Amino acid sequence: MTDANSVASFLQDRAPHHFSARARERCARFLRMCARLQQQVCERLRDIDGTPVRLDCWRRQEGGGGATAILCDGNVFLKANVDVTMVTGRMDASLLGQLAKPESTAWTWPEQGCNFLAVGLSSVIHVKNPHVPSYHFNLRLMLLNLCDGTEVGWYGGVIDITPFYLIPEDITHFHRILKEACEKHDVTYYPRFKKWCDDYFFIRHRGETRGLGGIFFDNLTFEEEGNFEFARSCADAILPAYIPILRARVSTPFTDQENTWKLLRYGRYIEFNLMYDKGTKFGLLLPGFRTETLFACIPIMAKWVYDWNPEPGGREAELVRVLRCPQNWA
Amino acid sequence: MTDANSVASFLQDRAPHHFSARARERCARFLRMCARLQQQVCERLRDIDGTPVRLDCWRRQEGGGGATAILCDGNVFLKANVDVTMVTGRMDASLLGQLAKPESTAWTWPEQGCNFLAVGLSSVIHVKNPHVPSYHFNLRLMLLNLCDGTEVGWYGGVIDITPFYLIPEDITHFHRILKEACEKHDVTYYPRFKKWCDDYFFIRHRGETRGLGGIFFDNLTFEEEGNFEFARSCADAILPAYIPILRARVSTPFTDQENTWKLLRYGRYIEFNLMYDKGTKFGLLLPGFRTETLFACIPIMAKWVYDWNPEPGGREAELVRVLRCPQNWA
Repeated sequence: MTDANSVASFLQDRAPHHFSARARERCARFLRMCARLQQQVCERLRDIDGTPVRLDCWRRQEGGGGATAILCDGNVFLKANVDVTMVTGRMDASLLGQLAKPESTAWTWPEQGCNFLAVGLSSVIHVKNPHVPSYHFNLRLMLLNLCDGTEVGWYGGVIDITPFYLIPEDITHFHRILKEACEKHDVTYYPRFKKWCDDYFFIRHRGETRGLGGIFFDNLTFEEEGNFEFARSCADAILPAYIPILRARVSTPFTDQENTWKLLRYGRYIEFNLMYDKGTKFGLLLPGFRTETLFACIPIMAKWVYDWNPEPGGREAELVRVLRCPQNWA
Repeated sequence: MTDANSVASFLQDRAPHHFSARARERCARFLRMCARLQQQVCERLRDIDGTPVRLDCWRRQEGGGGATAILCDGNVFLKANVDVTMVTGRMDASLLGQLAKPESTAWTWPEQGCNFLAVGLSSVIHVKNPHVPSYHFNLRLMLLNLCDGTEVGWYGGVIDITPFYLIPEDITHFHRILKEACEKHDVTYYPRFKKWCDDYFFIRHRGETRGLGGIFFDNLTFEEEGNFEFARSCADAILPAYIPILRARVSTPFTDQENTWKLLRYGRYIEFNLMYDKGTKFGLLLPGFRTETLFACIPIMAKWVYDWNPEPGGREAELVRVLRCPQNWA
């Protein structure tokens, strides 16, 4: 079983010394928060599934490492993972170019690259029952040490849901919890971050979103303490947003046909993750990042059927209609 | 059933008039060759499977269209497709940048884009029996009308094989047929195009190739008649390279475990196609290209198992060893 303190100290031991004491302390605090949340999620997974969660700690040769907690093919979960990673070292200009640069900043990406320190938590849950949505969240802190010694850094994150059948009250519940978390900090956050999420998860070649969204944010400067507090509110919202939906739907009977529909939707999930997801792309471009950790979020099985279209008027078509035209839920 | 003449004339009717009569005649000849090969492959698929092949003709609003022949979930084939496409219109600078520019040419890509005409044949065969390799080939002619009225154009293509179990004599047969086709034209072709193929199908994040290669070529100018003859030799080699292997292995008994291994390898196949394949990327970037045709090559089902490694000394590990270190076969 995951232990927050040992994960945090395993990673803390790999922290670099070329950042200021203040920056390192902020990273350590964020890392402790991530490790605690990892432990909470893992405990919940184990309690619901009755199956132990496996923990793989790994070291990145170029700097840092990670702790991948995973439960595969359990009683309830098909695949559920929670990764905490801390990676550090040099980042070259081409990789810097993959990052979203904060608006209204005077500096540009250093052409010769720079030192970086990134801490993140990432989790995806896929459930056997197709009436339970898949769930994804990610919280991250990126720090850069620019050529002139300036330190810049920002928080980013995403919490989103991917149902296979539309149950409006579930999606409303999910978005409401996220909206409340946002409104504690800034009333403009939820509408902005909800739209950012819909835009981010758009699968262009299919003309539809991966799921029914949530919130997506980036570039919230680490200089402002309020931004750490916001990340903490997001962390606190994660289980209350999802677990009630899981508990409400996990015993709904389902047919083979409904399961096949889930496998077809997993195909779209994989298309998004492999073709558009910036996190996957960044991880693959970052030398030494563990491939198995990056692919832990991929569903265990998926289907692609040529020219398959849901029956008009059915529940599958109802979902597709909403994926093609994002709605307001809270 | 596919009829080569009707496919060729369906597409010929959509040909543009802003290319010279000579260029259009070369395209029409290449298109007829593609349509004939499509018909031959479809006839062979139907004879082997005993199932009719579906033909979907489609029009691209921006210019051109295609004919997608497909057999799904048959007696022998899981998914087998043969597409002929002819697309035309304007290509902008960003899309031009995706093309491999012929070496030793004086011209550069026109910044304002240019008119193009592309004719291609593409086919992928996935078989139910895991002892039969998957097969892929593609032949194409690209023509550009540069700003000063100059016409440039070139042939490209790829023929490659993706086995799930290594049967050396099958792979040797396959490469030998391709080598013979190459040597009719230029003794340097096979070694160059074989290496190009191994390099092209390398899945960087897995440290292995998608399959056991074949030949890959590009930028063979359409000005030289010998290059059309080479493309024709490739077209003639396609069925003799693959069908004897299919016939030899299609009745080999197989276990559920062997089938699961095939599904895991399909996962890698999909990773390559969605993340690295230039043809898929080009098709998705080209406005109006039919998504279902692009995805017709994707296996019907695939698996991803976290941190799965083949048993040392087993036949699965034997394949992976060769995928990690390309060999000479002919």
